[in-house]
Formats: sequence, C-alpha cells, structure tokens
Amino acid sequence: MAKLETKSVLDIAKEAKVASRSLVSLTTKVKNEALLEMAAALNDNKTAILTANEDDMSTAREQGINESLLDRLELSADRIDAMSAALRELVMLSDPVGEVVAGWKLPNGLLIKKTRVPLGVVGVIYEARPNVTVDAAGLALKSGNAVILRGGSLAFKSDLALTEIISAAAVRAGIPAGAIQSLPSADRESVHELMKMRGYLDLLVPRGGPGLIKMVTENASVPVLWAGAGNCHIYLHADADYDMAERITINAKVQRPSVCNAAETLLIHKDIAEKFLPRIVDSLEQAGVTVFGCPITKRLCSEVETATETDWRTEYLDLKMAVRVVDSLDKAIEHINTYGTLHSEAIITNDYAVAKKFTEAIDAAAVYVNASTRFTDGGQFGMGAEIGISTQKLHARGPMGLTALTSTKYIIEGDGQIRD
Amino acid sequence: MAKLETKSVLDIAKEAKVASRSLVSLTTKVKNEALLEMAAALNDNKTAILTANEDDMSTAREQGINESLLDRLELSADRIDAMSAALRELVMLSDPVGEVVAGWKLPNGLLIKKTRVPLGVVGVIYEARPNVTVDAAGLALKSGNAVILRGGSLAFKSDLALTEIISAAAVRAGIPAGAIQSLPSADRESVHELMKMRGYLDLLVPRGGPGLIKMVTENASVPVLWAGAGNCHIYLHADADYDMAERITINAKVQRPSVCNAAETLLIHKDIAEKFLPRIVDSLEQAGVTVFGCPITKRLCSEVETATETDWRTEYLDLKMAVRVVDSLDKAIEHINTYGTLHSEAIITNDYAVAKKFTEAIDAAAVYVNASTRFTDGGQFGMGAEIGISTQKLHARGPMGLTALTSTKYIIEGDGQIRD
Repeated sequence: MAKLETKSVLDIAKEAKVASRSLVSLTTKVKNEALLEMAAALNDNKTAILTANEDDMSTAREQGINESLLDRLELSADRIDAMSAALRELVMLSDPVGEVVAGWKLPNGLLIKKTRVPLGVVGVIYEARPNVTVDAAGLALKSGNAVILRGGSLAFKSDLALTEIISAAAVRAGIPAGAIQSLPSADRESVHELMKMRGYLDLLVPRGGPGLIKMVTENASVPVLWAGAGNCHIYLHADADYDMAERITINAKVQRPSVCNAAETLLIHKDIAEKFLPRIVDSLEQAGVTVFGCPITKRLCSEVETATETDWRTEYLDLKMAVRVVDSLDKAIEHINTYGTLHSEAIITNDYAVAKKFTEAIDAAAVYVNASTRFTDGGQFGMGAEIGISTQKLHARGPMGLTALTSTKYIIEGDGQIRD
Repeated sequence: MAKLETKSVLDIAKEAKVASRSLVSLTTKVKNEALLEMAAALNDNKTAILTANEDDMSTAREQGINESLLDRLELSADRIDAMSAALRELVMLSDPVGEVVAGWKLPNGLLIKKTRVPLGVVGVIYEARPNVTVDAAGLALKSGNAVILRGGSLAFKSDLALTEIISAAAVRAGIPAGAIQSLPSADRESVHELMKMRGYLDLLVPRGGPGLIKMVTENASVPVLWAGAGNCHIYLHADADYDMAERITINAKVQRPSVCNAAETLLIHKDIAEKFLPRIVDSLEQAGVTVFGCPITKRLCSEVETATETDWRTEYLDLKMAVRVVDSLDKAIEHINTYGTLHSEAIITNDYAVAKKFTEAIDAAAVYVNASTRFTDGGQFGMGAEIGISTQKLHARGPMGLTALTSTKYIIEGDGQIRD
C-alpha cells in the first residue's frame, strides 16, 4: 500500500493508458482466465479482506454512520462468495470486442469494417459499497478496458485490499499491470483530478446519488455516462382494467421501493378516479405506503397527505407514493415529461391508439404498456450483468450491458486508393 | 429581430424543448416537405440574405479580418443556391427515426423493442460560416430534433436572417415554432449560458478549432459531441511498395491540405529510409510541401527543416509535413498513439501480420491499410450528409451521419406482467 500512496492521479492514469494498449488485443480466453483467477483470489484472501473491512466498519461506526450505509459497507464470507460468483458469471457473457457491427464495399473497392473496440480507460466513482469495486473491475476487464476505481471514502481500506488482490490475480493470468487500479487517496481532491484526466480517461461513470452526478457533470472534462435517478410513473388510462391496474401499481411501488425503477407517482384519468382511487389508495396503504394526493385525490380519499409540487419531483425510494388525477392522456404525458427523469414510465390501457401515443410521446429510456416499471434492468432484459441504467440519451440509454463500455473503429482495407 | 432580442437563452431552450415534443412524432413526409419549403425560401429571399451578409462583411472588413475568414463569411447568389441544394439532398436520405434497432421477447411474454428516436434539443456552436446554419438546421430537422444555432459573431446578422427565413418556412410546412432558433445575441455570455442548459439541451455540438472545443468540454454541463482535430499519419512499413507509398503520401498531404483528414506526419521504417526518403521528400517538395525532418531524415535529405517535438503534435492544415524514421512497426504505433488525435491513420504494407497488428493497435476512428486518409468523410463512406467527424469514442466515432443525432428508447409491450 505504501508504494501506491506515493502515486499521483496522473501517474495512475498514465499507467492505465499504457495497460489499455495491450488489453485491446487480448483474447477472450485470456480475459476469462483472469476473471476466474480473480474469483479464486477473493476466496483465498477472505481474512485479509475482512480485516480491512473491519477497519473501515469501526471507523464508520465511530463517525455515527447510519445502519443502512453500514450494511452496504459490511463484508462477510458470504458476501465475498457473492462477489466471486459475479466474476464467474461474467465468464459466461459473450465478449463484445471484435464484433463487426457493419461492413460494406465502396465503389472504388475500399472495404470498410466497423468493428467494436474497448473504450480504453474507464473511471468509476461510486459509494462505499465494496462489491461495486469487484463488479466494475470485472465488467471493465471483460470489455477490454483498463479501470480506475474510486469508491466512497468509508470503504477506502476494503476497496484497496480488494483492488490489490484482484489486480495481482489478473496480472498472474496475463493481464498487464495497471489494468485494474484504485485511487490511492481517500480525499475529494483526487476525484476532482480524475475527472479532468482528458487524454487519459475515455469515460467516467459516476454511480451514486444526484449530488455525485451533479458534481461530476458540472466539473468533468472527460466524457461522462451517468446512471441517474428514476422518478417513475404509472398512468391508469380511462379504460384501465382495475385488477391489472392495482396489481401493477402495487408491484411497481412495493416490490422493492429502494431502487430506481420503482414507481413514485400514480396518475389516474379523471373518468375512473371516483371508482378506482379509493380502492387503490386503500391497497397501497394496506401495503404500508403513505400516499400524497392532489386535491381531487384528497376529496375522494380524505385520509391521504397533501401532495405539493415537491412531491411530483421526488424520487422517494421509500414506501411513499404521490397520486394525481389528470384530465386526459395529454395531461398525463405532460406531467410525466415535466417531472420524470427519463427512466421508466408505464401506462395501463387497452386502447390501441392511446398506447401508441403514450409510447411515442413519453421521453424515457423505457416505456411500458400494461407492465410494471420494475423490469428495467439488465438482468431482466436478458443482457446479463449491467453497469447501470443510463438516463442520458448519448451513447447508451436504459440498462447498460458490456457494449456500453465499448466504442467502434472503422478499419478500411485498400490496395492503393487515393482520393480524386 | 427586435422580438427575438428580448428572449433569454432559457426562454429559447424552453421553446425548443416544447417544439421537440411535437417533432418526435412528425412523419418523414412532413419533415421532407419542410426541407423543400426551406430550400425554396432561401431562393425567394436572396436579397434579404445578401443585405444582412453585406452588413456582416463590412463590419468584418473594418475589423481587419483576414481574407480566408472573409471568404468563409461571404455569401453570394451561387452560395445561397448551394445551401438550398444541400437541404434538398437531405430529402433523399432515409429518416433514422422509428427504426427498430433490436427486438426480442422475454420468457414472461414481455415484448421489448429498441427503437430509434430523436435526441430532443441539439445545440450547435460554430464559426462565422453561414452555410453551417442551414446545414445544421436541416440535419436536425430531418432527424426530428429542435435546434439552437450559434455561429461566430462575425456572421451574426447573416445567421439571424437565415434562421428567420428557414424557420418561418418550416412553420408554414407544419413544423412547430421553436424547432429552429438561433441565439439572439452575439456575446460570449450567451454561449456559456447555452452550455449549462441541462434538462433542456440533450446535446451540444461544437464545430470549430481546438480553442472552441476546449472551452466547451471544460465548461459544458450538457452532453457534448465534438468533431476534433486530425493529426493524421502515413506509416510506410519496411516492405512498402514505393509507387503506392508515394501516391498515397502525396494524396493524403496535398490533395486538400486544409482539412482534418489530410496527413500531417510521414513515418518510415528505417530499412527503407535510405532508398525511399530522398525520392519521397523530393516529390513532396515538388508538390510545394515544406518538410520538417528528424535527424536521420535531415542526414538523408539535407535541405529539409528540423522537426521538433512540436511538429509531431501539430495539425499543420497546410502544405507542411513532418517526417520521422522509426526503428520498427512498434515504434510507429507508439508514435501514432502518442501524438495522434484518434482521427485517421494509414499504413502502407503488403505484410498480412503487420497490417493486422497495425489495425488492432492503432487507437483511431479510422485505420487504413494501403489507402489515403482522405477518405474519412460521411460522403465518401456513403452516409450522405455528415454532421462532422467525431474523434471521441462515446456515442459516435468517425464520420457522423443522421443517426448520430438520435438516441434509442425501449418500448415494452405487456399484458399485465409484474416482477416476482
């Protein structure tokens, strides 16, 4: 560790760039062997990992960190096994590098091949969740990228221990040194340096809350891909089937309220408000949900809390739901496009034209007809492991699989062609 | 014009966002009719355009602007015809919006369709070249985006006249007002405001020199796609055919030296330096090229200038070329990956393994074997009009056609699915 601590962010970025030059042409076989070696090394070094984690945990406890953050920080033998298993699962995914995405021949005989290549060097900034260290390193390696990791400062010792163990294992399997590194300092300054490493960093992925994403997008001079918040809606159109409406609303809100694809606001057409709202609000409340309603909702269900403008904007990530009665499909679309975060939005309807208009007009990564928003997920979509769910429109939108960590390159084969 | 000048950048961005909501679902037919109406309006309003341009030209002359910039700024009846023609050519290109990029069915019956959609609102910042105003507006409209234009301040009146004419024509053809706007102020502050319009601007495209791109990437909080500089190389391997090597080198340097895909440095393997270099340097000089050589080049061709570190980094955009003798393929690759700008790179060789290694190891948007770098171009690649040539790795790399102005969206059709 002493050696690492003397390195500057620039040195680390340079080493990563050098490593990325060799990673480009590594075979899938070598990368998969390295993933297995890394998985084995985690198992072989449980004691060292748990010791480092205990240090982090006791510092965090001294700082009075709350239980849910402590839970995300804490490692156990089982959790280390789960990290190993995640690496072994990556072996099963197909390698995106080398895919010929398109190819054609020009009239002058030039053969153009658009081929998939690694991005180069990827930086990942995340919270104090040591499992992300291993996940991100594995995803970067499988897609042929060098990675620079920076977890939350509370997990500093755990992350450093994990990085040293998996990096050494990767090197033993033929991966260049410098392919997997973490920033050797827990201070904020090094994060700021990292996001300015233009020419070295090909991508920076901030994984975390709105504060982190805001800081990165406002300060980074390297390209950024963010996994943003999900202020997701369920809209019950005038013709919605009650049973389906209730089932999907409850599932989208209650099944796992702490995740980004959980629903936060229920919109309901005025024509069915009187009939549906009291029942659905009752079901929500029975499921433990606190409801915040618009004036009409409050009139129909007197016991609900009052929703304010803030509620329309809030990603509760909790057993809370805002409810608003809308006059029309257009008003529902307007509400969602105003307050939504371009994540996942659902309509419940059996009207063909209404469904078509909703899916066209809603500006979001995933738009559902008659299904729960909870399906927006790389695993659910059948992509295997995901880097996150992109709510930006450039490069990758929605669940991001391994290809989100790649670019393309044109290879042009000629026999002496010049331009007229 | 008076009305426009009272609008804030935020007002413009908001109007563009509103317009973008309707643009999403416009048919190709309506967009094409608008392009034709815009083309006709340019022809019908030549006098007004030329008057505004004369104002700009006389101000520019008073400021002592050099001839080449004046030439780019100046409009004529012929140049207005060319802008019209460019709009009509866009009609012939296929509309990227609505393409189903991929689709599959999940085990639970959910049908997922990944469909191509407009980005939303695109900002374009460019130099004092009024033709870019029309090109960018046409490309944005054809791909279903609202656009906010900001040309160089020298062209302020020309750009405003053009924007008013084509915007009014588009509205007559059924395009929402606000779809085509330009910033109503020539000051730098409005550009800075534009690049902070997060939540309104889905993409900002800086078209211009390294200064503009640096300013935008360092200050923008919206996603940026840049068309960067091209410090392109030709590498002659030890087995290169002399005639092909000379033909391609001369073409890449001389055919149009002012563009980004022109070659700037010639690398040559040491084994053929003595035989090739005097002849090829002589040919370059006969074509009017000033050569800057490494020490070995200087020994072999005494008349050349001395190349310094700066020469390896310079995009001359002029009849100048740096020449360096390298010891090996690896040294050539190292030089290019160190000094190149990820644009276009070429090798001349007949060795299969050497060509394979070069194309794999070189980190650039376009890598050529036995062809001139001058082919990196949307038109040459058969894409039709291009927005520019991306030297970044995210979203779009190399020549950018209409699809670079699009994103995708997942549309998921269910019949009541919830997540377990």
